[in-house]
Amino acid sequence: MADTIGSIAAILTTLSFLPQAIMVLRTRNTDSLSLTMYAMFTAGVTCWLVYGLMIQSMPVIVANLVTVCLAALILSMKIANTVALSRAARLRLR
Amino acid sequence: MADTIGSIAAILTTLSFLPQAIMVLRTRNTDSLSLTMYAMFTAGVTCWLVYGLMIQSMPVIVANLVTVCLAALILSMKIANTVALSRAARLRLR
Repeated sequence: MADTIGSIAAILTTLSFLPQAIMVLRTRNTDSLSLTMYAMFTAGVTCWLVYGLMIQSMPVIVANLVTVCLAALILSMKIANTVALSRAARLRLR
Repeated sequence: MADTIGSIAAILTTLSFLPQAIMVLRTRNTDSLSLTMYAMFTAGVTCWLVYGLMIQSMPVIVANLVTVCLAALILSMKIANTVALSRAARLRLR
């Protein structure tokens, strides 16, 4: 029973980043996303991936490989928008 | 070594939702946050909490208790904004 709950938890938390990634790709809007959150979260999920490789646990590896790809995609869009915004701000100051 | 990596991973992924929660509370802006993501993620983290209680693992319990509070806070702000927006839209149609 516990393993079933654990599997459901892993599937939900892993796939939950898919709708956010799709929304960011569709709207290009990352205004209310926290850059700090996605930087910390992507680093943390990368650590989970390394941990999974070290203990050779396929579920931990697969779940965190999917999550790190989705989180890194969202993080890169947030960074791109942040860089573009600061560049535009600098141009306005000239 | 693996346990150290696992602990760092848990701390990063757990605390990563704190800057997002602070940002949402400060700006009240949830436009680019996915309601589906936070609904799925909050449900998933709740399952991890139940899993932690079932296997009686304090780290799993504590980490997911913190995360579920932060995720639920963000989810409730997103729901509140979504309801307010649809109410405003209906009023405009009258």
